[in-house]
Amino acid sequence: MATDSSERSAPPRREQFPYLWPIATRWMDNDVYGHVNNVVYYSYFDTAVNGYLIGATGGDIRQLPAIGVVAETGCRYFRSVSFPESLEIGLAVERLGARSITYHLGVFAVGNAEAAAAGRFVHVYVDAGSRQTVPVPTAIRTAVEPLLRSIRI
Amino acid sequence: MATDSSERSAPPRREQFPYLWPIATRWMDNDVYGHVNNVVYYSYFDTAVNGYLIGATGGDIRQLPAIGVVAETGCRYFRSVSFPESLEIGLAVERLGARSITYHLGVFAVGNAEAAAAGRFVHVYVDAGSRQTVPVPTAIRTAVEPLLRSIRI
Amino acid sequence: MATDSSERSAPPRREQFPYLWPIATRWMDNDVYGHVNNVVYYSYFDTAVNGYLIGATGGDIRQLPAIGVVAETGCRYFRSVSFPESLEIGLAVERLGARSITYHLGVFAVGNAEAAAAGRFVHVYVDAGSRQTVPVPTAIRTAVEPLLRSIRI
Amino acid sequence: MATDSSERSAPPRREQFPYLWPIATRWMDNDVYGHVNNVVYYSYFDTAVNGYLIGATGGDIRQLPAIGVVAETGCRYFRSVSFPESLEIGLAVERLGARSITYHLGVFAVGNAEAAAAGRFVHVYVDAGSRQTVPVPTAIRTAVEPLLRSIRI
Repeated sequence: MATDSSERSAPPRREQFPYLWPIATRWMDNDVYGHVNNVVYYSYFDTAVNGYLIGATGGDIRQLPAIGVVAETGCRYFRSVSFPESLEIGLAVERLGARSITYHLGVFAVGNAEAAAAGRFVHVYVDAGSRQTVPVPTAIRTAVEPLLRSIRI
Repeated sequence: MATDSSERSAPPRREQFPYLWPIATRWMDNDVYGHVNNVVYYSYFDTAVNGYLIGATGGDIRQLPAIGVVAETGCRYFRSVSFPESLEIGLAVERLGARSITYHLGVFAVGNAEAAAAGRFVHVYVDAGSRQTVPVPTAIRTAVEPLLRSIRI
Repeated sequence: MATDSSERSAPPRREQFPYLWPIATRWMDNDVYGHVNNVVYYSYFDTAVNGYLIGATGGDIRQLPAIGVVAETGCRYFRSVSFPESLEIGLAVERLGARSITYHLGVFAVGNAEAAAAGRFVHVYVDAGSRQTVPVPTAIRTAVEPLLRSIRI
Repeated sequence: MATDSSERSAPPRREQFPYLWPIATRWMDNDVYGHVNNVVYYSYFDTAVNGYLIGATGGDIRQLPAIGVVAETGCRYFRSVSFPESLEIGLAVERLGARSITYHLGVFAVGNAEAAAAGRFVHVYVDAGSRQTVPVPTAIRTAVEPLLRSIRI
């Protein structure tokens, strides 16, 4: 968490993401400056990751014996977006670990190749009862493999 | 944004923060797992930073000729918190740049010395009209100086 | 505001609404009981009304000399909905007054003829500067006329 | 739900509410017009009702065999409020039925005798498993009795 602003990397591009999840902005997403508030981007990330997992596993991930708890998140903002824009959230897996998954995310305005924001989202898997860390469940591992990228950003 | 989970630093402690902003959790902050959702922590950070600035400058920062736009945010989650807990958000300035301010934040349950989560929040100052970057306004600079820490985390 | 639960009318049906606005639920919309929280329905109403007005007037309603301020809202909940369901928000105008518009709204799960919830949303028009009530602007009046229903619910 | 704006009753006053729940506004509560968005008031109501019940029953109401599901909510807005204002939510029980409770709520700026908004919130009690309506649990009934008012508003 010590990135200097001089080291800021360029916005990611659409082709870096194997999957795009559509998000419709809401009136309330805009803050007093008329743009989507910085907080709201994380609800897009949360929705894209969990929505993808629910769809790709074909089941209710909230009922599995192991659940993903969020260990770390982050976002860099390059350009603002606003309601009523439609967005697409690019989804890629940066690292598929034994007990955790690190997602890389991009926020794209429709028609834009370059991301308006780039996110990071880390799920650590824990036993739903004891909350001890456990291996990433096979159903989840299989679901996210198509999101692995050869190129690291 | 490439921190490996093996390099995770320890949770920050209360004494590392020159200022504490009180936050009351809300029923809706809890998600399906019964804990404050990862997204909501960012609304605590947003509120603590802007609330502090409004209080310390004694004015409406939204009406200044230069406004702080959020360039980067991040959060590491160590322990869960839940409604109806009361929280305190530790506030420190990690870096006071010419055109940007990097805040370090801690989420503390009342009575806990160790943070439940640690945040990062970067404001870049821009002209309210042209949106070109400008120097941090003097009123803001004076307001945040007491938040500068000698010890870097 | 004195409706007795014994007088509860039946859920409205799709055909009662001249317009349907699509809403994608978000992970965070679900509360601790696993269903969309009662508060969140109002963000759907807010989005449908303002989104419709922005689209139908072809302009930025936030920049008009007269703006709609919300004077009253209400919702009756018949059945729960949950992320990741897609919804449609039925939109009708119940009353087009000189200075106010009362919208009637329905929350529909895709494929359901009967609403999961029914809403009410009243905009009163005020001068953007003085905040005194003013007539509904012509551009808004024209935009909402197709939403007037002959049948009152 | 057919109140005409000409029948609008006056804002309620503090002395009509047996209990006041403190709410701190958040930066994100403000919308593009610089005031707390109409949706957010419902998160205040939700928090005041559930927070009161958790405190007054001394237990976790989410673990009871009978849970309160929200059947109806409503709000009339008289004056705007904004971050960083502190608020108090007046809480009263308008009707304590066999299977439901109707709360009356007021949103008060600190130091104001007259409400900025007035709310209505109806909980119907259902079996946590079958979701069939059941009598209001004794622990809840005892908790809300001090909120009953002799004067109906």
